Order: sequence, then structure tokens, then C-alpha cells
Amino acid sequence: MITIANERVAMKHGAGGRAMRRLIEQVFLRGAPPESAAMDDGAVLPLAGGGALIVTTDAHVIQPIVFPGGDIGRLAISGTVNDLAMMGATEPLGLACSVVIEEGFAIDDLERLQRSMREACAEAGTSVVTGDTKVMRRGELDGVVITTTGVAITWRPVRDSGAVPGDVLIVTGTIGDHGMAVMAARNQFQFGETLRSDVAPLNGLVRAALAAGDVHAMKDPTRGGVASALHEIAGKSRVGIVVREDAIPVRTGVRAAADLLGIDPLFIANEGKAVLVVRPSSADAIVAALRAHPYGRDAAIVGECFAESPGTVAVDTGFGRRRLSEPDGELLPRIC
Amino acid sequence: MITIANERVAMKHGAGGRAMRRLIEQVFLRGAPPESAAMDDGAVLPLAGGGALIVTTDAHVIQPIVFPGGDIGRLAISGTVNDLAMMGATEPLGLACSVVIEEGFAIDDLERLQRSMREACAEAGTSVVTGDTKVMRRGELDGVVITTTGVAITWRPVRDSGAVPGDVLIVTGTIGDHGMAVMAARNQFQFGETLRSDVAPLNGLVRAALAAGDVHAMKDPTRGGVASALHEIAGKSRVGIVVREDAIPVRTGVRAAADLLGIDPLFIANEGKAVLVVRPSSADAIVAALRAHPYGRDAAIVGECFAESPGTVAVDTGFGRRRLSEPDGELLPRIC
Repeated sequence: MITIANERVAMKHGAGGRAMRRLIEQVFLRGAPPESAAMDDGAVLPLAGGGALIVTTDAHVIQPIVFPGGDIGRLAISGTVNDLAMMGATEPLGLACSVVIEEGFAIDDLERLQRSMREACAEAGTSVVTGDTKVMRRGELDGVVITTTGVAITWRPVRDSGAVPGDVLIVTGTIGDHGMAVMAARNQFQFGETLRSDVAPLNGLVRAALAAGDVHAMKDPTRGGVASALHEIAGKSRVGIVVREDAIPVRTGVRAAADLLGIDPLFIANEGKAVLVVRPSSADAIVAALRAHPYGRDAAIVGECFAESPGTVAVDTGFGRRRLSEPDGELLPRIC
Repeated sequence: MITIANERVAMKHGAGGRAMRRLIEQVFLRGAPPESAAMDDGAVLPLAGGGALIVTTDAHVIQPIVFPGGDIGRLAISGTVNDLAMMGATEPLGLACSVVIEEGFAIDDLERLQRSMREACAEAGTSVVTGDTKVMRRGELDGVVITTTGVAITWRPVRDSGAVPGDVLIVTGTIGDHGMAVMAARNQFQFGETLRSDVAPLNGLVRAALAAGDVHAMKDPTRGGVASALHEIAGKSRVGIVVREDAIPVRTGVRAAADLLGIDPLFIANEGKAVLVVRPSSADAIVAALRAHPYGRDAAIVGECFAESPGTVAVDTGFGRRRLSEPDGELLPRIC
């Protein structure tokens, strides 16, 4: 089959949407164990003594490496802490961190990244317990790639497949902040207020939510934004999801930038937000618990899960419903 | 301090020797927890129920990605399985695998790498349980970087600091095969027999050794070769190490190439060998167990640990002793 034989990796294959999912299914999951086929935020490995070990990994390639609100160091820690938290594991045992550096990278800059990794670790109550350092020649790598893997034990893993009809959808705050801040930094445009990334470790926030009620599914809406997260949950849980457009919190500056660029904030990456699917009777208590936390002040109920149209996501605009497509390709490369 | 302010990352900082160790100490270990300061093959995280979780991570940047005897896929699995095994953890719970790909990389090639990852996993009795895929633009990354993290539980971690005076040194086979094969492939030279990398998962071999006797310390001599591994053990265990030059197994082709290039095989990277430090009364049984395994046929006793000159490594040439220096910089970039 010549078309497949000549196929090449494109930017969309790293964009967190349908193209990436297909590449992973086509190449990486062939012959893979059921656990990795679940394609959750992390793997769940049952332990002999009870409970499960959660393992999650992420390579961080963001560009620029320093942006309003954070840098690749804070991102590398937060991204992995958050993937653990999304599985219900809010107490990381530790992180492993692999750094690939371009020859000529300033050691000062490396120290700065290291400092912000340390600060993010302190905030998340964890640390980097092991690492690896590789150097590639000048021109072989643009800057630095940081891959962070996290491990944690939990007794009740929260899976993408756990949503059931009737469940309530919550987002923990304003959406689109990270992606829009990086886009603005890269293109040096301004929209009144400075756009800042929301990058933050969310395990404390998630701990508060789990203590307040029943969480059936969770996802951090990174690449592909809230749209991608909702599609994953709808697909794996076999529910239909409807979100109310006017209920979704979006900052004025992000809204303005998104309108100008013609991008739906639902497709923009976040690094300090979570989408929670919760039991209806828990929803109010969970929103209250989230709002009491500095990272959850703008938490809001934004939608619901239905038995109808399983696997689909719709947006209620107030005038009717429109299908929300699954992001396919590249909105912005190297966003995380 | 202007000199430090202007310092930049050089190839030697990724070469597995003294320069890398100093960079790690200077930048990454500042304020780090004691566990990561041990700088072992992996971290040891004690579990509440007893035993310890071993976590290890490695970024693989080898070039060319396919070489005689293996490819970056087999390397990415073997390297991490071996780091776990060197800690005494021969039954991986699973691996996490992060792939960063250059735009335009052929999907065929990706499938080939994936196939050899799967084969190496099958051989090691493990699997990739979770992963991540990122794409960088053409020219931002030369090919592909694969970062593999492994987790395993062990009740008796083997640490670099476990060697004591009187202990016997074993290498599990011929040294220098991997580095010399990659060097030959890159420069397209030949030395009679084809030089082939020894890249292989060693957990089965190590399991046999652990069952046969008391192993006090273990190290896989990758970047920096056997010389670097011996220095790590001598330094962390505070013993003096003496190896007998004529006892060290080296293939004829590797010896010829090394002689021609003026490189000591002790400094060349291996990806399917281990250095074991064992209780003297166990040595013969362990060598016998190693030789009964396909990856240990050329296992040999090569030296001893002493109380004298702790932290140093010497080579007994048969005519006297010479100090073996700790490799500092770059012998060959992107060797693993």
C-alpha cells in the first residue's frame, strides 16, 4: 500500500487530537497490552498488596521556553503532577526527569528552569528523584526537551471511562489561558490585559474535589483544549455530552484574542485547569470545594452527560445546539 | 562570577563522565532530596507495605537510529530494563515511553522502531503501559528522541555504594561492542568481522546472577564505558578497584578498531553488559550462572575491591599498575 508506505509524520500528529490518536492506534498500540490501549492520562498497574500504581509520562517541547506565567520547567512538573491527579492520584511518590539539551544552551537558563521545577515540586509536595541528561549537537535540537514521568499510588483510580448519564460537568476555572498566552508571547501581540499561562500543579485542588464528593472522570484539557478532553470522556464512557456555552468561564483578554483570531476557546490548551465529571448530588459541594482553592476560584458547572448520542459532544449556544468536532490537527505546535 | 554566567552546555556534559556529573551536581541536584543525590541507576522509593519501588528514566538520542545489532527502539527498552536490573529489580511492572518526532519522519520507520520495542519488551517480559507523542517542526529535532521510564518493585535494592573490600569484580561479557559498532556504522569503516552492538535487555541474566550468589553492587557500563562504571562504584562505595587488563574480554574486531583509533575499550559504551561486584565466596557460582545464559557466555572475573586508595581505579597490566582516569568529556556523542 503505497500511500501508507510513504506516509510521514506531520505536525498534526503531535497536536493532541484525532490525527495523533490515530497515529498512536496505528503504530504504538499495535500488539500493546490492554492497559496502554486505555489511553488514559496514565497507566493503572494493580499492586499485589492492593491499590494501584499510576504511571504517567510527558515530553515537553514548548517554545518559547519562558512565557508569561511560567516556563518549561514549571510546565514539566505541573503537566505530570496533573496527569497523576487526573487519575485520582494526588500524592506523587516522586518524579523522574530526563533532559535533552542543545549544545550551547546557557547554563544560567538551565539553572532558571531547574529553579522553577523545584518550586513547582515544592508546591505539589513532591520531588524529582531520578533523572538523565543528554546533549545533542548545535542544530540537532531546538533548545531543550524535558520529559517527566510521575508515579503515585491510589486506591481508587479515576478513569476517562467512568462518566455515566446524568453526571454533571465542571471546569475548574477560565479556559484557554495557557495556549493564548503562549500564542501572544510568540507573536508579540497584546489584548489589553496581559495574557498569562495558568500552568500550575493541580493535585491540591483535585484532592479538595475528591474529598468533597464523587468524581467519576477527570481530564486536564491540554493539547486540543476542553474540546479534546470532552471527546475523550464521551468516547470512552459512551455518553453524550452537552456543554452550555455561556457557562464556560473565559477571561476577557482570552475571549478578545480568540475572537480576533477566529479560534474557539474550547480548542485552546490549558495547563492549570481540569474538567471533572461528577455525580449530580455531589456537584454543588465539589464546586464549593474547588472555589475555596486558589486555583479553582472560577470553577463552574458547564454541562451534563446523557445516554443519547453516546460519543458525541454538543454545545448549547442558548439558541440551539451545535456539534463540537474533535480537534484533528494542529492549532499551535509546541504548546506544551 | 562572569565565567559561570557565560557558561554553556557542551557535548561533554552529555557524555556520562565527570563533566556530566558536575553539571548534574551544579544544576540539577541543588536542593534535591537525598534519594536523587545518590545518583544511582534509578531511585529507590520505600513502599508503605515493605519493599521499594525502583524508578529509572533515560532519554535515547542515538544516531544513526538503526545500527548493526539493533536500533533506537531496542535500545530504549533495553537501556531502561537494564537500569532497573542494575538496582536488583528484574521484573519490571511496566515502562512509560515518550516519543518526540521530527516532522517528516517516515511512519514506516516509526513502525519499525515500534516493532523492535515490542520485541525487546517481550524478551524482557514487560510492556509499554503508557506513553506520549510530540512532534517538532522539520529542522527543530534531528530524527527522534525516545525517553523510557521503568518502574519495578524489589525487596533488596542493589546500590552502587554496596561494594566492600575483598569483593570480586565480574564483567558479563565482551566490552566495547555497542560503541564500536555505532562508531563503525557512522564512519562506515570495517574491521574484518562486522562489529555489532550488544544491545539487549539483561534482566534475565541478572536474575540468574542474583539467584546464584551475593551481588553487592551492579552497573551497566553505558556512556563512559566500564571505566565510568568502575569509578562510580569506587567513589560511592569508597573502595579501591584494580582490574587485570588481560582478564577483560574484548572481541578481536573491537580490539583492532580500538587500537587503530587509539581508544581504550574500557572507555567504550556497552548496552548489553553489566559489571557486578560480588562476595568472593559467590564469585564462581555467579560466573557459572552467567555463562549458562546466552548474554553471559563470556562472563569473567576481572578484578577486585580493596580498602586501599578508596575512590580510585587501577589497571594491572601484568607489568605493573596504571591509574585509570575517570572519563571527562565526549568520546562519541549520541551513542545511546
